[in-house]
Amino acid sequence: MGWIKARRDTKDHIFLDIVDSTGQIQAVLNKGLIKASDEDYFELTPEASIVLTGEKRLSNANGYEVHVSDFHVPGPVRIDLQPRPRSYSEFFNGNHIDHILKNRHLYLRNEKQAAVLRFKSFFLFEVHRYLNERGFVFIDAPVLTQLPLYDDSTAFKVEYRDGRRRTHDVYLSQCCTFQLEAAIHAFERVYNVTPSFRAEHSKSNRHLKEYWHLKIEIAWAQLDDLIKFAEELLHTVAKRAVGKAERELDILGLSPGLEEMAPPFETVSYERAVQIVNDSGRAFEWGRSLGIEEEKILTAEFNERPLWVRGIPCSAEAFPFARETANPKITRTCDLICPNGYGEILGTAEKITNKSELLERMAEKGKVGEKQLERYRWYMDLRDYGIVPHGGIGVGIERVIRYLLRLPHVRYATSFPRVCGRVPNP
Amino acid sequence: MGWIKARRDTKDHIFLDIVDSTGQIQAVLNKGLIKASDEDYFELTPEASIVLTGEKRLSNANGYEVHVSDFHVPGPVRIDLQPRPRSYSEFFNGNHIDHILKNRHLYLRNEKQAAVLRFKSFFLFEVHRYLNERGFVFIDAPVLTQLPLYDDSTAFKVEYRDGRRRTHDVYLSQCCTFQLEAAIHAFERVYNVTPSFRAEHSKSNRHLKEYWHLKIEIAWAQLDDLIKFAEELLHTVAKRAVGKAERELDILGLSPGLEEMAPPFETVSYERAVQIVNDSGRAFEWGRSLGIEEEKILTAEFNERPLWVRGIPCSAEAFPFARETANPKITRTCDLICPNGYGEILGTAEKITNKSELLERMAEKGKVGEKQLERYRWYMDLRDYGIVPHGGIGVGIERVIRYLLRLPHVRYATSFPRVCGRVPNP
Repeated sequence: MGWIKARRDTKDHIFLDIVDSTGQIQAVLNKGLIKASDEDYFELTPEASIVLTGEKRLSNANGYEVHVSDFHVPGPVRIDLQPRPRSYSEFFNGNHIDHILKNRHLYLRNEKQAAVLRFKSFFLFEVHRYLNERGFVFIDAPVLTQLPLYDDSTAFKVEYRDGRRRTHDVYLSQCCTFQLEAAIHAFERVYNVTPSFRAEHSKSNRHLKEYWHLKIEIAWAQLDDLIKFAEELLHTVAKRAVGKAERELDILGLSPGLEEMAPPFETVSYERAVQIVNDSGRAFEWGRSLGIEEEKILTAEFNERPLWVRGIPCSAEAFPFARETANPKITRTCDLICPNGYGEILGTAEKITNKSELLERMAEKGKVGEKQLERYRWYMDLRDYGIVPHGGIGVGIERVIRYLLRLPHVRYATSFPRVCGRVPNP
Repeated sequence: MGWIKARRDTKDHIFLDIVDSTGQIQAVLNKGLIKASDEDYFELTPEASIVLTGEKRLSNANGYEVHVSDFHVPGPVRIDLQPRPRSYSEFFNGNHIDHILKNRHLYLRNEKQAAVLRFKSFFLFEVHRYLNERGFVFIDAPVLTQLPLYDDSTAFKVEYRDGRRRTHDVYLSQCCTFQLEAAIHAFERVYNVTPSFRAEHSKSNRHLKEYWHLKIEIAWAQLDDLIKFAEELLHTVAKRAVGKAERELDILGLSPGLEEMAPPFETVSYERAVQIVNDSGRAFEWGRSLGIEEEKILTAEFNERPLWVRGIPCSAEAFPFARETANPKITRTCDLICPNGYGEILGTAEKITNKSELLERMAEKGKVGEKQLERYRWYMDLRDYGIVPHGGIGVGIERVIRYLLRLPHVRYATSFPRVCGRVPNP
């Protein structure tokens, strides 16, 4: 049982390349020996599904092949699609991209796209395994929340009516840090990996409106603990996923440079990073977020390896992140940026434990007034109820996959990408 | 490092029960030996966090205890909460439920609630492990979709604007069967476990508006294959999770009856089920969905074990489910119902492979007109592009957890339950 990837006809024979998710085999039909109508033979087209019986024989040219004695086609092809999904080998070159995104449901069958998604599946499983081995509890944090991490305007709003048909301001989660911080007071080490959402229109090659977001939160952890934990997690999970994905890497023509990923990574302060960027001739103002061009300059300066940037200014970070005591204009954070334009893939941050500091940071980010305070009330209350020092790690899964598999665009790292400009079907 | 669960004072000593996620130990403070202010001692209240140093000594009464030489309280308690989350032992009796749901972020610390959530984490990990062992690929199906499985009115709507500020009808996924069916044509065996959503106001003890939904889709599988697969999955995953959760089951005072879960389960046809219900004296019309009262009658009839109900009428099932050839009024489906009022936890269904049959079923469910056909176009197109026989399994994770842990309400099986009548914070 499988699908036809290619067909070649001679006078008496039809040769079919049959594929399934495990590989490929040649099937040989001798038209003189098989009782089948012209219509049956006509349905044997590339992309059609086929059930066949026959004898496996060793062939000199192709290893084993199947000499078919009987067949039928449960799913003939009635759509003309060019290029053909299964055999289109220039998949990542950017041609036909509108066509591919419009027919995404069929292009999942492309062997390169399938290899990426299978690798992603390996990677996600290894994330679960690594964290479970270390006693982490998976928290089923909600997607629907009243607490956006950033401005309400950057969050998707949902029409939420309660039982009395009153409407409420509810959003799709931008980050589950709020819920994980509640949970560490029960479990100490918790995580979640589900979709997060950004209602922003970025045309970059590394933004998705819906993306897979790994969040980890650890009680008692300080910034250096988080950095060390993140390095080991990333390296071990990548190594284990790569170890399982021999066939997929072969299809992609890759041998990922895991030596690049071996910890520890070098660290540069944000302060020094601004200097390096400006010294390179690119004007960059203190206080802004590093963009992709700045990240390229920095990683080039540090041997094109993943690089930690430490102490991002408060102006560029979310309100729950703790400030540096000695310099309250910067946060106790460290972001990991990847070389060659892959950019930021992971961030770490200590969280604020003090309620008045939290209120100050909220005010800086415009979270003021009764309604806002009421929304975040329970999160603030955690500061008054046995709180402990803690911090978290956030990982953009598609960005990590993109970096490991050297994909030109983050859209290839997700099955149904939600990118700028596309109608959101499926 | 931990939290104070209880405090007892004598003239010279303070005795503290200190807990963390791994267990409990008694700490003894000799006020004469520790240099601390009255204020420091005052902060040693139940639920406060504490960092202490001291000497571990064997005590006759309590096993080991810690004789404290120094301590500090990083998180004192400034909220008066009764009953106290960590020590409230009648957690499942339904008292204080409004109070608990309003302060959910604090009641995660309750040891019974924490035991349930840790069990759920074990269970979810074992689901991943079981399916990965069998070559299943995890598909990152989107939460945002234009394809509700049921009526648009039962789906949460999202304000979705594209780059040109045009709005689109986008919903929160009710089921990712559409995307998984596309993916089986690449991988054959796929799954997803993420939140699904229902914008319905049910006051039952088994409905959540946002719940964890395991979906499995298997190429070439027929109904009997799906039934067998689901039975083995459920039994093995439950057994493995229970095997890891000795401490949690002890906290909950449970020894789950896994012998109940040993496959195969008995099967009753929907036809016969209607008869049994009516014979018991309860009027029940052919064509309706079984409700909790009908499910109780049926499982009582079959030894209070999980029971398959086979061949649900088309009127009660979603449009993608295949019809029985011999009797097109019923579907090729089988639902698993649990005894003693726990009700349906899992469903299986063969899917329609024929496009005209799909169009008929869509019309029956009101999915007619150009706009509807355009939305579901790509899903219909799969029928014209190498489709194969296939079927799926859907599992309500919280319902399984509720059944295994004998919880009175499904809200206890989720960290931040979204139940009828509650404002959706957090």
